[in-house]
Amino acid sequence: MEDYVTMNGGDSPNSYTMNSKIQKEGSDKARWLLSTSIQENLELQNTSRVFSIADLGCSVGPNTFSCVETIVEAVKLKFRAQGRPESEIPEFHVFFNDHVTNDFNTLFKALPPGKNYMAAGVPGSFHSRLFPKASINVMHSSFAIQWFSKVPEEVTREDSPAWNKGRVTYALSSCQVVKAFASQLFKDMEAFFRARSVELATGGLMVVLMPCRPEGTHPSESGIHFLECLGNALMDMAKEGLVDEALVDSFNLPVFLPTPSEVKEVVSRNEHLDIVTLDEMHQPPPQLSTPEGVRLWAIHSRAGLEGFLSKHFGSSVIDELFERYCQKLEEFSKTPHFTRVFEFKNLLLLAKRNGVC
Amino acid sequence: MEDYVTMNGGDSPNSYTMNSKIQKEGSDKARWLLSTSIQENLELQNTSRVFSIADLGCSVGPNTFSCVETIVEAVKLKFRAQGRPESEIPEFHVFFNDHVTNDFNTLFKALPPGKNYMAAGVPGSFHSRLFPKASINVMHSSFAIQWFSKVPEEVTREDSPAWNKGRVTYALSSCQVVKAFASQLFKDMEAFFRARSVELATGGLMVVLMPCRPEGTHPSESGIHFLECLGNALMDMAKEGLVDEALVDSFNLPVFLPTPSEVKEVVSRNEHLDIVTLDEMHQPPPQLSTPEGVRLWAIHSRAGLEGFLSKHFGSSVIDELFERYCQKLEEFSKTPHFTRVFEFKNLLLLAKRNGVC
Repeated sequence: MEDYVTMNGGDSPNSYTMNSKIQKEGSDKARWLLSTSIQENLELQNTSRVFSIADLGCSVGPNTFSCVETIVEAVKLKFRAQGRPESEIPEFHVFFNDHVTNDFNTLFKALPPGKNYMAAGVPGSFHSRLFPKASINVMHSSFAIQWFSKVPEEVTREDSPAWNKGRVTYALSSCQVVKAFASQLFKDMEAFFRARSVELATGGLMVVLMPCRPEGTHPSESGIHFLECLGNALMDMAKEGLVDEALVDSFNLPVFLPTPSEVKEVVSRNEHLDIVTLDEMHQPPPQLSTPEGVRLWAIHSRAGLEGFLSKHFGSSVIDELFERYCQKLEEFSKTPHFTRVFEFKNLLLLAKRNGVC
Repeated sequence: MEDYVTMNGGDSPNSYTMNSKIQKEGSDKARWLLSTSIQENLELQNTSRVFSIADLGCSVGPNTFSCVETIVEAVKLKFRAQGRPESEIPEFHVFFNDHVTNDFNTLFKALPPGKNYMAAGVPGSFHSRLFPKASINVMHSSFAIQWFSKVPEEVTREDSPAWNKGRVTYALSSCQVVKAFASQLFKDMEAFFRARSVELATGGLMVVLMPCRPEGTHPSESGIHFLECLGNALMDMAKEGLVDEALVDSFNLPVFLPTPSEVKEVVSRNEHLDIVTLDEMHQPPPQLSTPEGVRLWAIHSRAGLEGFLSKHFGSSVIDELFERYCQKLEEFSKTPHFTRVFEFKNLLLLAKRNGVC
C-alpha cells in the first residue's frame, strides 16, 4: 500500500492552486539559478528537433508553469547565445507528472493560453519509471521528493521498537523512529534517481529543489517541528474523544528533511549521474508572530495535507484539526525551541546524465 | 467560441465509461482490421527505440485502452514476424488526447494496471497541433472526428438563409443548412489531417474509424435522424414552455455523417498522406423494437451529449429531455422512414505519412 500525499485539487480557498505561495517563494529564488545552471551546463550537440522537459510532482499549478517557462526560455537563450539560427531552436514537449490522484483536470484547464510548448500530463509515482529510455532532456522537481512513497511500516506497529506513538513526525521521537524515516527517504530517493538516470538523454540535466536542514544538524533540528504541531493538535483531540487515539498512533506524515550531504551521498551512488552543483539556500521562515501569519501557514499546510489526513481520520475532523493547529503553531512560536529551528533551508541540486551505459 | 462535445466523465450510470458499448461494437469489428493493417503496412526501418502512439478523442475509457493494446500487440507481432530479437522491440509511449474539458482524472485512474506502455494525457483540440513534428508512429481516432470544432455560425442566426429553426441536426433541413453542416465537417477534417501529417513520422500510420452514410446517398439518408428525435423532444418542451423556443432555434449538434468518398476527397488533398485503405463496414443498427433497446440507445446518447446540452439549456431539463427522447425514438422506429435509414455504416481509413517534406 502506497501512501501518497497529493495536494488539494480545484481552486477553492483551501486548494493548492490558491495556497502555493510558500513553495513559490522558494522557487522564485531558485528561478534565476535554474536559468543560469541550464544555460551553463546544457549540451546542445545532443539535442534533436524535439526538446523534452518533465516536471515531477507538478501538482495543479501555478508554480509548475513558471518553472517550465523558465526552463524553455533558458534553453532558447542558450541556442541564441551560441549564434544558432531561430530555425534550429527545437519544439518543446513538456510532461507534467504527479500521482494518479492529482487533479489533472484542474492542471490542464490552468495551462497558460499562450504557452510555447506542447503539453502532456503523466500520472504515476516518480519512484518508478514514467518515460521511455533516454527521452527527456531536462527533468525538474520542486518541493516534492522529500515525500516518501509510503510510511515505513515499523513506525506504525505497536510491537515495533520504532513505533511512533502519539506523534506524526520524527521531530521529538526516538532514534529508531528517526532512523526509519531517514532510511525510507534514502530508499525512495535512490529509486527516484535510478528511474531518472534511465529516462534522461545523455547530457540531460536533472534539477531538484527541496527543503532540507542545515549541514551538521540533528534531524530533529529542522522545520519538521512545524508539522509536529499537527500531531499535538491530534493528540489533544484524542484526549477529548474527538478522534480515536489508536488512529493517531498509527498515523505518520511520510516526510523527512535531509542535509545536503545526505542527498549528495544518495546521488553519488548512481553511476549515471554526475553532480554539477549542490547549493544550500536560505528560505525566509514562516511569519508566525501575527494571527494572520499563523493562519496563512496553516492554510498552506492544509492545501498539501488535507487529502492525506482525511483518508486516515475522515473529513469531518479536518476543520477542527486546523483550528487547533493554528493554536499549536502560535504556542510553538513562543517557545525557545522555535528560535532554534527558525532557520529554513532549501537545497538546489543540479546533476547531469553522463555517457555511462 | 468553440463548441466541444465531451463525453460524460466519472463512472456513474450516465457516464461514458458505463455507456460506450455501441462504440465498442464498432471498434471490435475494426479491431482485427486495425491489427492486420498495422502489421501489413508499418515500416519498421524508420522506428527508433521509442514507438509513439496517439489516440485522439480518447474520452475516459475503456474503449481507448483496448484500441491501444491492439496497436501495441500488432507492432510487436510485426517485429517478431520479421525475426527481429525481443531486445529490438521498442518501448511504447502512448498519448491519450481529448478536449481540455474531458475527465482526464477518471481516464488516468482507469489505466490498466499491467499496461506495457508509458502513458500520458494530452489536453486540447485535435483540430490543431498537439505533438512535436514527426514524433508519432501510429495515430488512431475512433468515433470522434465526425464532431466539429464548432457549430457553423450561419445555422444559428435568424437572419441567415441557413438558419436551422426548430431543429438540432440537418436531417430534415433545407439544402443551405445541409451545406453549412457539410462544409464545417470538411473544413475541420482538413485541419485535423493537416495537423496529423505534420506530427506523423515518415512511414507512420493514421487510422480513423468513424460513422458514415452509404455511398451515393443524400446526407439526410443516415442515422442522423436518431439525433433529430432530440430536436423533436426539445420542440415539444418549448411548446409546453419548459424550455425557451429561441434556445432551441439557436442550438445545433455539431456533427455530420459523410460518405467514404467525401472523406477520401478531403484526405487526398493532403500531399503528405497516402490513403492505404478505405473500408465501409456494416454496423448493427440500434435495437429500438423493445423499451429496453430504446432506453439503452438514449442512455448511450446522454453519456455523449449531456454536457453539451446542459451548457446550452441548463442541467435541470436533462432528465425530462431524455425521457421524451425515448418516446420520440420509439415513435420514429415505427415510421417507414426508420427502415430507410436503418442501414448503419462505419468507415475505416488507413493512411500513411509519405516522405514529401
